[in-house]
Amino acid sequence: MTYQDTIIALASAAGSGAIAVIRLSGNEAISIVDAHFKSVVSNKSLINQQTHTIHLGHIIEKGRVIDEVLVSVFKNPNSYTGEDVIEISCHGSNYIQQEIIQLFLRKGCRMANAGEFTLRAFLNGKLDLSQAEAVADLIASDNEASHQIAMQQMRGGFSSEIAKLREELLNFASLIELELDFAEEDVEFADRSQFKDLVDRITFVLKRLIDSFAVGNVIKNGIPVAIVGEPNVGKSTLLNALLNEERAIVSEIAGTTRDTIEDEISIGGIGFRFIDTAGIRDTEDVVETIGIKKTFEKIDQAQVVIYLFDAHDFKVKSSVLKVELEKIKNKYPQKPLLVIANKIDKVDDILISKLQIDIPDIKLLSAKTGFGVEQLTNSLLDLINTGALRNNETIVTNSRHYDALLKAFEEIQNVKGGLETGISGDLLAIDIRQALYHFGEITGEITNDDLLGNIFANFCIGK
Amino acid sequence: MTYQDTIIALASAAGSGAIAVIRLSGNEAISIVDAHFKSVVSNKSLINQQTHTIHLGHIIEKGRVIDEVLVSVFKNPNSYTGEDVIEISCHGSNYIQQEIIQLFLRKGCRMANAGEFTLRAFLNGKLDLSQAEAVADLIASDNEASHQIAMQQMRGGFSSEIAKLREELLNFASLIELELDFAEEDVEFADRSQFKDLVDRITFVLKRLIDSFAVGNVIKNGIPVAIVGEPNVGKSTLLNALLNEERAIVSEIAGTTRDTIEDEISIGGIGFRFIDTAGIRDTEDVVETIGIKKTFEKIDQAQVVIYLFDAHDFKVKSSVLKVELEKIKNKYPQKPLLVIANKIDKVDDILISKLQIDIPDIKLLSAKTGFGVEQLTNSLLDLINTGALRNNETIVTNSRHYDALLKAFEEIQNVKGGLETGISGDLLAIDIRQALYHFGEITGEITNDDLLGNIFANFCIGK
Repeated sequence: MTYQDTIIALASAAGSGAIAVIRLSGNEAISIVDAHFKSVVSNKSLINQQTHTIHLGHIIEKGRVIDEVLVSVFKNPNSYTGEDVIEISCHGSNYIQQEIIQLFLRKGCRMANAGEFTLRAFLNGKLDLSQAEAVADLIASDNEASHQIAMQQMRGGFSSEIAKLREELLNFASLIELELDFAEEDVEFADRSQFKDLVDRITFVLKRLIDSFAVGNVIKNGIPVAIVGEPNVGKSTLLNALLNEERAIVSEIAGTTRDTIEDEISIGGIGFRFIDTAGIRDTEDVVETIGIKKTFEKIDQAQVVIYLFDAHDFKVKSSVLKVELEKIKNKYPQKPLLVIANKIDKVDDILISKLQIDIPDIKLLSAKTGFGVEQLTNSLLDLINTGALRNNETIVTNSRHYDALLKAFEEIQNVKGGLETGISGDLLAIDIRQALYHFGEITGEITNDDLLGNIFANFCIGK
Repeated sequence: MTYQDTIIALASAAGSGAIAVIRLSGNEAISIVDAHFKSVVSNKSLINQQTHTIHLGHIIEKGRVIDEVLVSVFKNPNSYTGEDVIEISCHGSNYIQQEIIQLFLRKGCRMANAGEFTLRAFLNGKLDLSQAEAVADLIASDNEASHQIAMQQMRGGFSSEIAKLREELLNFASLIELELDFAEEDVEFADRSQFKDLVDRITFVLKRLIDSFAVGNVIKNGIPVAIVGEPNVGKSTLLNALLNEERAIVSEIAGTTRDTIEDEISIGGIGFRFIDTAGIRDTEDVVETIGIKKTFEKIDQAQVVIYLFDAHDFKVKSSVLKVELEKIKNKYPQKPLLVIANKIDKVDDILISKLQIDIPDIKLLSAKTGFGVEQLTNSLLDLINTGALRNNETIVTNSRHYDALLKAFEEIQNVKGGLETGISGDLLAIDIRQALYHFGEITGEITNDDLLGNIFANFCIGK
């Protein structure tokens, strides 16, 4: 490990809590803190302490006690960054946090940049690049599905899948390059049919990973659901019902209340982003036409459409409703559409029968009483292809990885074509090296400062 | 230690950060976490680990990894609460925080009440009551002075001063009560003149502590300063200049910006609360009279008055200004008044001379260029009696303590009077016991559930 200046940052969330955690990493992390730490029990020095131990004492400057703290000592290479790391758990006031950080800035630390602790972990070989990226995803994850994917990636699931392919490909690349050294002798060290098998396997895996991005991306960002419905058909009540259904399972703590429709709700561990839209009336009115255009724009962005109406209105508006539904179906034949009659607690059985006859797939709902809510959540989850998620397969969520996989796929197709047409080994080797390059971009064997700068700039400071 | 159920709470600030800290305390803290912790290095159990050690591993439920965490183990009595304590440092997403807390709530923990960790520390004898109260003050402190007072109190400075007096008084109480057992023999175990000396000393100390509350209370809540001045005389610029002067010393991090006048600024480590007021024109207009009334109400609340005007205006408004100043001086002869001519960078030397002649104590300022700002901060600090603060004397900031000290003082005066008039030992003993009772209220020897409930309800959850 080369010399690393010592960086410092608040690692816990900003603001006032019971405690706050300040993290330092670098060659002088331990000695800088030790010079201002007085243990409560004896004259012990932090420098002589074992890694992964905690010490109660005071942070003192010129005789003035700044705080009573717990200091955790991590010695390189056994730390998050791979360097010497100190974590100071202090009382959680902004004032104390700042006093401590200011003290150590004066004593030779500098403020860490966004993601710099994780960047160092990467540079010191504690994580590969896709694992490092997963750390940010993990912190950003707010539902079970995105959390699961980020966790799997952070634990190296994705990297090991890529690494395995890369190693096999590398073997063949070496053999083929070896052939080039013996070009005059026209030998074949690399068995072409075995190599073709490998290329097919790689093609298969890459295709699966590339396809997984469609699911991964929406899981990461939340699945957009357009709710088409006029005011007062019960959109807010429906979302609160969905939220309550979930809340009983997920959280007594959050205490979320929700006034707007356009918000994300976690259902069955997957984030759904609901997008409010008006109805789609047939009209000659210019203003209403604009409204319709906007509604269609929002449906364009959605993966699922919910058409919600007040069951009561069906008596008087059934023909209008049916026209609207036809319009949506015609414009978006492939897009899943859930048609829901709300407030069915307010209507009689005759109307319900009529509803079910007129609109075959209709779902009956009383958002108020909760009737039909569970069926609706199941329908929503059925529409999402969560097979890969359930099977714990690797799912690609990062567009940088997606790009690299697409490029690797392209190169592998070139290799495949080359094998079929029997191109020369030197040209084949170039394509293989290109594919390897793109694999290496994902895990960070191939990297540069710009790329690292872009990736870690999206981290929070302190991580 | 009796059986304590295991409580859990987020200890770091709410919201998303790089990491979050979840704290558990109670008899089963270690075993509850151990059942869901898998170390990365071996099959180690948290139960067998030494106190003050840190362990890297995963929190797992039914095979599902919730997070990679660092677990800190503190074994009773060597912990904050005096019980077994676990601190889990996890990735800082709200989702992960909740998943972990929810998991352990299902496994037998309950959510901690506000201040319950500190309450347990008190009940287990790790802190006395005034020290426990100082923990909340420390977290709430946002400047050097309030921080210093809270820190001194938390470290037991106040308690030990009270405890010393209490012990001496207790000795005399015992001797006098012993005399009562030998009442027929008319002996005096307690030397009356020594006792009178003690009562005088206690009187002196109590008086000093009671008097310190005047300073302590304003330091805790910020020193109110009324700024009298019309719009556009430069009030905001002045406050920003004061803030910048301080910011260079205190913080590069905060990044505070400030739009309103009515706000708190830390100057020289002491919090000042600035209160915006209009000018005080002589008027017959009813509406303006209301304005004047409000201005006076605000000056009533202030400890210091700043009268700020635009030096430019002095040419045309000098007589009005002088009338206003006279009004304030007449109405508040005791209240410190700083008269400041702002924007002096815009006026010539002749006007400055005239200003200095007409208003003897005038301070010249250019909030824009910074001229005179340092002199102003020094003037403000001079007006606050910070002698006790500088000398590290105990300062009372807590109104509960103040009340108890007043009551103890009253009882001690009764004792003193009783000694002078030579009342009987049994009556004397009652007054001494009453004084002891009030001392005990401060440190918590005397307490009850209502009192504890009130005190700890003001804490944040997780502390």
